[in-house]
Order: sequence, then structure tokens, then C-alpha cells
Amino acid sequence: MTESLGVAVLGAGHMGADHIRRLDRVVSGARVAAVADPDTDRAKEAAAGIEGVSVHAEAEAALDAPGVGAVLIASPGPAHEAALLAAFARGLPVLCEKPMVPDPAGALRIVEAEVRLGRRLAQVGFMRRYDAGYLRLKAVLEEGRLGRTLMLHCVHRNAASPSFFTSEMLIEDSVAHEIDAARWLLGEELTAVTVLRPRASGGAPEGLADPQFVVFETAGGALVDVEVFVNCRAGYQVRCEAVGELGSVRIGDDQGPLVTVSGSAAAEVPQDYVVRFADAYDREVRAWVAAIRRGRVGGPSVWDGYAASVVAEAGVRSLRGGGRVTVEPAARPELYAGGAG
Amino acid sequence: MTESLGVAVLGAGHMGADHIRRLDRVVSGARVAAVADPDTDRAKEAAAGIEGVSVHAEAEAALDAPGVGAVLIASPGPAHEAALLAAFARGLPVLCEKPMVPDPAGALRIVEAEVRLGRRLAQVGFMRRYDAGYLRLKAVLEEGRLGRTLMLHCVHRNAASPSFFTSEMLIEDSVAHEIDAARWLLGEELTAVTVLRPRASGGAPEGLADPQFVVFETAGGALVDVEVFVNCRAGYQVRCEAVGELGSVRIGDDQGPLVTVSGSAAAEVPQDYVVRFADAYDREVRAWVAAIRRGRVGGPSVWDGYAASVVAEAGVRSLRGGGRVTVEPAARPELYAGGAG
Amino acid sequence: MTESLGVAVLGAGHMGADHIRRLDRVVSGARVAAVADPDTDRAKEAAAGIEGVSVHAEAEAALDAPGVGAVLIASPGPAHEAALLAAFARGLPVLCEKPMVPDPAGALRIVEAEVRLGRRLAQVGFMRRYDAGYLRLKAVLEEGRLGRTLMLHCVHRNAASPSFFTSEMLIEDSVAHEIDAARWLLGEELTAVTVLRPRASGGAPEGLADPQFVVFETAGGALVDVEVFVNCRAGYQVRCEAVGELGSVRIGDDQGPLVTVSGSAAAEVPQDYVVRFADAYDREVRAWVAAIRRGRVGGPSVWDGYAASVVAEAGVRSLRGGGRVTVEPAARPELYAGGAG
Amino acid sequence: MTESLGVAVLGAGHMGADHIRRLDRVVSGARVAAVADPDTDRAKEAAAGIEGVSVHAEAEAALDAPGVGAVLIASPGPAHEAALLAAFARGLPVLCEKPMVPDPAGALRIVEAEVRLGRRLAQVGFMRRYDAGYLRLKAVLEEGRLGRTLMLHCVHRNAASPSFFTSEMLIEDSVAHEIDAARWLLGEELTAVTVLRPRASGGAPEGLADPQFVVFETAGGALVDVEVFVNCRAGYQVRCEAVGELGSVRIGDDQGPLVTVSGSAAAEVPQDYVVRFADAYDREVRAWVAAIRRGRVGGPSVWDGYAASVVAEAGVRSLRGGGRVTVEPAARPELYAGGAG
Repeated sequence: MTESLGVAVLGAGHMGADHIRRLDRVVSGARVAAVADPDTDRAKEAAAGIEGVSVHAEAEAALDAPGVGAVLIASPGPAHEAALLAAFARGLPVLCEKPMVPDPAGALRIVEAEVRLGRRLAQVGFMRRYDAGYLRLKAVLEEGRLGRTLMLHCVHRNAASPSFFTSEMLIEDSVAHEIDAARWLLGEELTAVTVLRPRASGGAPEGLADPQFVVFETAGGALVDVEVFVNCRAGYQVRCEAVGELGSVRIGDDQGPLVTVSGSAAAEVPQDYVVRFADAYDREVRAWVAAIRRGRVGGPSVWDGYAASVVAEAGVRSLRGGGRVTVEPAARPELYAGGAG
Repeated sequence: MTESLGVAVLGAGHMGADHIRRLDRVVSGARVAAVADPDTDRAKEAAAGIEGVSVHAEAEAALDAPGVGAVLIASPGPAHEAALLAAFARGLPVLCEKPMVPDPAGALRIVEAEVRLGRRLAQVGFMRRYDAGYLRLKAVLEEGRLGRTLMLHCVHRNAASPSFFTSEMLIEDSVAHEIDAARWLLGEELTAVTVLRPRASGGAPEGLADPQFVVFETAGGALVDVEVFVNCRAGYQVRCEAVGELGSVRIGDDQGPLVTVSGSAAAEVPQDYVVRFADAYDREVRAWVAAIRRGRVGGPSVWDGYAASVVAEAGVRSLRGGGRVTVEPAARPELYAGGAG
Repeated sequence: MTESLGVAVLGAGHMGADHIRRLDRVVSGARVAAVADPDTDRAKEAAAGIEGVSVHAEAEAALDAPGVGAVLIASPGPAHEAALLAAFARGLPVLCEKPMVPDPAGALRIVEAEVRLGRRLAQVGFMRRYDAGYLRLKAVLEEGRLGRTLMLHCVHRNAASPSFFTSEMLIEDSVAHEIDAARWLLGEELTAVTVLRPRASGGAPEGLADPQFVVFETAGGALVDVEVFVNCRAGYQVRCEAVGELGSVRIGDDQGPLVTVSGSAAAEVPQDYVVRFADAYDREVRAWVAAIRRGRVGGPSVWDGYAASVVAEAGVRSLRGGGRVTVEPAARPELYAGGAG
Repeated sequence: MTESLGVAVLGAGHMGADHIRRLDRVVSGARVAAVADPDTDRAKEAAAGIEGVSVHAEAEAALDAPGVGAVLIASPGPAHEAALLAAFARGLPVLCEKPMVPDPAGALRIVEAEVRLGRRLAQVGFMRRYDAGYLRLKAVLEEGRLGRTLMLHCVHRNAASPSFFTSEMLIEDSVAHEIDAARWLLGEELTAVTVLRPRASGGAPEGLADPQFVVFETAGGALVDVEVFVNCRAGYQVRCEAVGELGSVRIGDDQGPLVTVSGSAAAEVPQDYVVRFADAYDREVRAWVAAIRRGRVGGPSVWDGYAASVVAEAGVRSLRGGGRVTVEPAARPELYAGGAG
């Protein structure tokens, strides 16, 4: 196939605009065919200079625009369910940014809709599965030389949170990444969660429970702990250490240039996740496009999106009520057989 | 004072013999005056070549030997209480290896006995307070540039545990170090503890709950988590990261020579805590001897020893019964005023 | 421009095949239009599965194939001069792998030919200028907070050299990268070179002067030292430390996952430069394609290719004859004004 | 022997006062018996609070003071020769700070004087041989798993030089350490030296050739390069990488606490060599005292001191005249047989 894949991008905010740039300039074999955003000025701006693109206020209009062969959903979470169903109705392959659908019931409706189609059409945007560090970490675990994995220690820190961030969003938005990464790395479902609240940082907005310390248990008895701290001030930091029976493996201390000056030897800590995971986003979208061009859909499934929702929702209950909350997911459909992640 | 300090060493096992060597050859201003061990052959062997030393089967005989001006207790834990009381009765300064007295009731009796004396005679052997890394970590926290400390993440791994090690000893023997270090670094008491049990490593003896993951809460709302894994196989590893409101600081990744060969760039991981903390032991005993020669007693007190016992005992209850256990210590006597640690 | 750029790739060996894969699958906006290799079976294999590509034995035939808008030269060095001149004759933009033209006289003919065209058509494949580490190192130097750069310390090690490698090729093929990187980082010409020969490694083929230690002097008095060791056995390693008046900056110790097992904490050392510089090659070709689509040519020029040749040739004379050899380049044409690199 | 060793310390400046403190408080089995300094006020101040010490203006008077069993020479270099000869005349074991005797002729007279005694009495203060990092580096080399050592890359940086520092002193005072370390690590004599002068740092005093880049050749064909930069501003840094036939090993990047704050992850760089090598000095003096108490003298010999002088003097000639200077030492007396270092 030499024809490039025409993609409709839904949402022209920060993430949508970045994906438009990526599809236009970075990813081979794709082009932006349509952009939809209720704010059409924003959509036009993001689409500026791209030949043959159409701009729409409505998502469905973009899906029906000429030349559209796939959909990338980067609109706000509440719009995801309708957009996914609209794509399914048209048989269009989808890449849906996370959280796929924030509430578990809605997420389950997506799973059921895809099951009715009888084949996978959607991939969920858990880009860490495409990060070079995570990929190498997983490769080390799969080599088997560390034995079974017993624990994951995770750190997820942002320099500062947006003003609209709530205590629940530390789980739903931030830890969601660790939920998916843990399921993927361990190949096991998370079955219980306990959210602990250390004293709040004076650097966080009044009333925000920040940081939090979250402990997950897996079906096989492994533990996953996550420090999430979205106003850590120092910079964006994502670390993961897997502890196995025979050793451990750690990622996230990768350093750029080491600068020695004025009494310290220092590496820069990036301020933004876009810097840290830029390559992962590129790899994710590239793999998605390449798969579609070969008639396939892969990567994290809507089941993975649902699983993250249901675990995050249990986490939110633990955050609110305290104590350990068990996770009670629906039965896993045959379409998504083959282990967690 | 030019006269060196004569020390009676109680216990000539692994740790006692090491302290005998240290007092004889490393520490300025001290000499080994007496050695006691029920196994007198072992005591003689440890004392071989030291001029003017007497060897005894009974601890009290060693305390009464000529030239003894201080006592170093390195006998097994159950013998500590009697030895401490005997030293107190004679007004001799003591350095007592940890755990000071394993059960909280016995530990409290020691606190009460010293309070009756009205002055401190004993120092407890929490040598991490003398480790260069911990000292620098504490200095960074005290500078204040990281704001208040919110969390400590700790890792404590041994290559393999001795055959007699029980699941409880992971708390009482190993995590005891983190209990003291956390109290000292944060200047706060630990008020609750939850012990979690990930699936046991196939590399640990049958029936041993290894690793464990322990979460402490402090009086001020900080969290301290500790991975303890005494059959991790890879080597001895002690790490500590303090997370403050404005940044974090980490120790324990110090590396010796970096050897690049055969496709890997590697630093050696020591197999033994004696290697890792050799300098801390030297500094501890040196400071103890120097203080006595100036007529003082400092360092970790018997209150610190008691506090570690009572927190560890709560941890053992959590390990056995599951769930969160609150720590309920006795009231802190005036003699030990001035904050935790 | 929505039409993708058709590229003729000359040479279908290891490097050529990798560029074909890159143009076909990784780089947005380009496609492989023609492949030439005297071994047409090899060319066919590298072009397999690419729609609309033509395969040729002769380079010029590929340049004349339909749809060709640019040329990527990845044939052996001796074929570069003719290929560059043929591209110039057709007004086609070129990306030429290094060494551009191995002998300075031939390299100068290319410079003169492009000067006669009156505009830049060619970019030389010094991909380190596109490596994230080098780019960040250069950014640190340009910020000015280290003051003027006084020295560069470089290490360039390969696990093993190909069987045809000669002592001269350590300079011409390997150190060529450091020659260009030094000119680019310092913005100065290299004016003298001294090649020192430590005792040869027993791990290198009999008669090969491996390792070598090369010291360059710049026009402004900076020093650049390079350890080149092409049979170092341990793996592929490229490091660079810049020492300024106020501090230093170092790249090349970037580590992937840190694996702690069996008494060592180790990061993998890659065996191959393709792994280490994969992203740099992608970025280089992407930038080249994007520039052409905007009607521009940038990146390292044929003057940079000539400069590397003339410095490397002086290095070879130093290797052979011993002692310090001064570099005597032709005058820099106006077309390439603006500092070294 | 229970009697502690009485030491006469010659020189009560920065280094002498530090050794007095060390002998008084840190090193087991020794005491300061006498202190000599032409500035007797300074001597008194350094000796304050030490029982039984006598203070002298003249070195010889200190050697003859009661209770003196050994001599530590920490006076300025020009006074070393007379002090060493005076100690030899009295049969007193000596630890002499480096440079032993700055000029090779004087150093050779010391060698000859000790040879006439027929036994070793003096140890030279090359403390790096007692640094944990160097010891481990040497251990790795001696294990043999890196094959023969082919090159050493060394960095020696001070934050700032004292006002009296001359260009020659970068070789005689600073690189002297690398000269001894290289001889010791490689077990080979240095046979030629080339001193290169990069452009001088604007941060160095006017007229000081700082930094310098020094290349040594060994008898067996190994190369040793040293960056010496005594006004590097950033802090005190000593690094050494040994490159062998099968791999490499590096020390000097050891880091204390890693502090992540305000966009950087940084380790402190010490400002002073006393911090970096504090443990090495302790170990050096402890080993010297312990050896004397067992009737022995070991460590770096006066031959090592002479060798450093003669190599440094060749370096100074290269610095002044430019070019490569060969080192032409006297014949090595039988008393110092057994390889360089």
C-alpha cells in the first residue's frame, strides 16, 4: 500500500494538536484527513498548513469526511464513549487516548460493543508500552533471569498539577498509567488497592491530597506500590523498579548530559511528560499506523482500558473511604484472552 | 587523659569478635581489657594477641575485671537486659548492640533503670546514624531546601538469611534499622504499622514470609515504606529516599569502580553488611570512646532502643494478624526529651 | 506539498538497506523510488515489498528513474565522488554517507563542484549532529554557563573491527566522527594532530595499531583527545566530555535498565553503533527529507566532509610517521561561511 | 606492644595540623610526642590539649624529644631532605609528605642514604594508594579479567589554586599524584612525557598555564594521559579510568546523596581534597603506625619518591621547552627491587 492512511483527529487541544503534528510530520504512511473540535478556531489552527484536511465542529462529521480511514480520539474523556461507538459503527480503526472511558460502566459498554463487532478495532493510548525503557524492562523480566517478579516500586511525579486537578485525578489520571504498566509488566490483574495519604505538601493547592501512596495487590500475590506526587516541584519523574526472586531491574534514572559546575554534578530533570515520553508517543502512533496499513489492530485493547477504569475506580473508593478495596471486574471476554496487559 | 579506655566486650561471636578487632586496632584511645563468652575457647581466640586482656565465661566477671572502664555488649539479645543492668549497677558506660532488648517490656525496664540512675550511661548500636551516607542525607533534610519531609522509601535486602531466621525477624532484626533511621531522620515517632506480604520468593526457605513490605505512619502524618527482602540473592543493598515538599534526596546507590566488560557496565554489589557499614561501625565506636573519655554519653539512647522494640512488636502483630496496628508506647521520660531519634 | 519525496538509494549493503527501511517505514514524507547496487540481487532484496521502486545496477540509471527527487548515497567510499557529481549534474539534493570522499583532493573537487553550482545540494551523513546527547551537549556549551571550552575528551570504542580494517581506518573511519563532532561543538577548525600508539591489544588482529590515542589542536588553542579502540571487546561506547572554564559536561554514560543480580548492578552496553545511534539516523534522514520538501538543504556540508578528510589524512600521516602533523586545508569558499561545523 | 607510638610531627601548617589531629584522635596506637615548626605559636596551637607533647622551633630538637619513636614530616618541601637525613641518623621510621624532595638530585641523595642504612626507614605520603577507590581499581586490574592494561585516562581538578602556584607546580605538585598512581597501578616505570598546553582558562590567574594535558609513556608501551586543571572552579575531582584489552574500569564518579530539586538531579562535588581523601589519609597513617609497631616499614618507598621527582622534572622540561622528553632515572637499587610502585 503506497496510499497514506487518512486519519481523523478528534480534539485539537494540547494532546490533539501534538498528535496532528506527529501524523503530519513524524509518522510515515499517515496524513491528517480531518480535524474536529467544538472550538473550530482551535481546530483550524491545529490543521493549518496541512493540505487536504477538513475541519469540523462535530466528531461524526469528521469521521464521515472524505479520505478518512482511521480515527485518533484526543477529545476530553467524557466525549470518548460516543466517539468510540461512532467509529465502531463505521468500522474505522481507532486510537483512543487514555483514560479510555473514565467510569467503569461506560468502559464496559465499549468492551461489549467491540465484542459484538467480533473483532478488535480500537487501541488505547497507554504509551508507556512503547517507551524504550519500559520495553527493555519488560524484556529483562521475560528473559527470566530474575525469577518471578514479586514487587514493583513505582514513582510518578509531576512538577505541578493543572488548576482543575482533584484528589481523585491523582488516581484516575496519573496512577492510571502505573495500573496499565503493572498489568502489562506482570501479566496479572490487580485485585485490591489501598490508597494511603501522607501529609499533604505545602506546595500543593489547598485541599488536594498530594502526594498519595497507592498499594496494589495482584491475582498472583505480587505487590505494586506507587508514589504519586503531582506537585513535587522538582520536575517530571517516572521510575519503576521490578524486584524478582533473583534480582531487580530499574528504569527511570536515565540521565542526559552530566553538568559539573559550582560544586555539583547534575543532570537535568525534564519539566514535562511530553519531553520524557516524546519517543514513546512517536513509536505508539507509528506502530498503530503501520498495523492498520497491514490490516491489523494491536496494542492495548479496550479491555485494558476497562481494566484500568475499574481498578482506578476502586482506588478512588479507597482514597475516599480509606482502607483496602477489592477490585471486581466483569468477566473477560474471549476476544481479549491471553493474560492481563 | 592519655590513659586509654579499657573496654569489656561481652560476646565473642561474629559481631563481638569484629568489635574486639576494632577496639584493638582501629579506634584510638581504647583497648580491650576483658572478654566474656560462655564459650571461653571462642573468647580466647578473639582475644588472642591482645596484651593485658582477661577472658571470662561470665559477663559480670568481665565487668569486674581490672582496668575495665566501659562495656560493649555484643552477646545474643536475650542476654542484653541482665548485662545492661549489671553495667548500670557498676556505673559503667555501655554500648549495646541492637536489638537492645527484643521485647518492649524488657526494654522499658532498661529505660526505667537508667531513669532511676538519673543520667545516661548507655548508647544503643544503631550504627546507621554514623554512616556517611545517612549523615549527609540528614544534613540535606536539615538544610531545609527540600521543605518538610513527606515520605521515606526504603529498601533493605540481604543476599541470604541465616538458617534460624524467622518471618518475625525480618521486622525485629532487619527493619529495626529502618525504624530507628526513620525516627532519627524525621524526628518523629512512628505511630502505626502495616505489614504486607507479597508472594514469597522461591529463593527463600520454605515457610519464610520473604520479602515483606512494611508501611509506617508517623505522628506528623509522614509515611515510611520499607521493602525488606533477606533472601534477595543479588547482594546486600540498603537504600533510602526522602521525599520532601520541594524535592527528594536518595542514598544507597553509591558505586565502587564501574567495570565495563562483556556487554555490561557494572558496579559490584557487596555481599555483606559488614562491608557496607564498616566505616559506620568504626565511626560509631570511635565516637563512643571519645565521648566517654570526655565524660559524656551520647548517640542513640535506651529510649531509642525501647522505641524500636515497641514499633517492631507492633509490626510483628501486623505480620501475624494482618492489617494496620497502632503503636502504643509508654510516656517518654524527661531524661530523653528532645524529639524522636 | 503532499506528494512524498522519491529517493534513489545508491548502495544496498548494511547501511543502504537500513536507510531503505528507514525511508520506507520510519520517515514521514519520503518513499524509496529507486535502488542501485552492482549486486542487483542484493538491491532487489533490500527493495522487496516496496511499491513502485525500480532496481538498477548502475547509480546513474537510478538517478534517472521516474519519480526520483533526491539521492541517498550509501555505496562504498570510492564510488561517492562520481555519485555526488552525477547528482549535482541533475540538480538533485543528496545525502552522502561519510566519509564523503576519502582523499582530500577528491573531497575538494566536490566542494569546488558545488561552489560552481552556486548553492548547496549535498548534506554529509555525520549523524552525531542529530544525536539527542550531542545536541544537548552542544546546547549546554552554547548557553555559556561553562565559559569557553578548553578541552574535549572523547572515547570511541567498538566491540570488534571488521576483518578488512586497517590501522589507517581507525582514523579515517572511526575518528572521522570525532573530527566532525569536535569542529561542530567547538566551532573551530582542527589545525594539528598527533597520533600516539599505545601497545596494541592482544585482542586486536595481528598488526593492527589498536587502540590509538589521537590529540588534536584547534585554531583557537583548544585540545581534543580521542581514544579510539575498535577491538575493545566490551561493546560499543561513545563518550564525550567538554571541559570549560567554569565546569564540564559529559555525555555517553546513558544507561538503560539497571539490573542488579549476582553481586553486580549492571547496565547493558550495546554491541552495535546502529543501536546506539538509531534515533540519530532517524532524525538525520527526517530532517533531510523535511528540508528538501521545503526547498532547502542544511546539515553538515561538503565543506565539513572535506574538512574531515583533510584532518583525517593529516592524522594518517602522523600515525605512519609519528609526531605532530599540521593540517593545511584549502581556503574556505564563501558558500560555506559561518564558522567550522 | 601496648605502649603507643610517640610521633614527632614536623610542620604545623594545614597538613601538619591535620596529621596532629589524626594521630591524636583517629589513629589507634599512636600519640603526638613532639611538634616542631619555626612558627612556634602555630606549633603550640596545633598541639594544644595534647598531654605530654613538647613543642620546638627546630626539627632536630623534636626528633630528640623524649618518647619520640617515629617522625611524620609535613614541613615545606625544601626542608624535607634535612629532616629525612636527621631521622635516618637516629634510626627513626619516617612518613614524609609528598613531594618527598622536589629536585631529583636531592631525592636521589635520600635514596642513597637509605641504601647505606641497608634497610627501609621511610614511607612517602602518596595517600592515593590507601584510597578505597584506587585500591579496588587496582584489585580489578590484578584479577586479570580486563587483560593487560593499555591506557589510563586521568582527571585531576581543583576548584582554585593557591596564589603562589606556578605553571610548574601543576606537574610537580598535582600530577605528582598521578605519576605515582600510574607507576603503582601499572607496575611499570614512566619513560617519556609530553606536556600540552590548551588555551589557558580565563578563570586562572594571568600567566598560569592552566589547564595542562600531560601524556606519559611507560616502559611497556602503555599510555597515561592526565588532564590537570587547578582552577576548574566547579570543585575537586579526581578520576581514573584504566582501559584493558578486554574492558575498562573507572573510579572517581562516586556520588554522595543524589538531590533532585528545581529541575536537576545533582550530587555534591567536594571543594577540597581533604574531604575526598580523608579516609585515605586515615588509612595511610593507621597502616604506617601499625607497621612500625610490628617492626616494619612498608608503603611507597623513597625510590617511589625519587621516581616521581625525576618524572615530574622531565614534565617540567616538556612544559617549558615543548615536545616529548624522555625520563632518565638512576639505576634502581636492590633494596627497592620488585617492580615500579
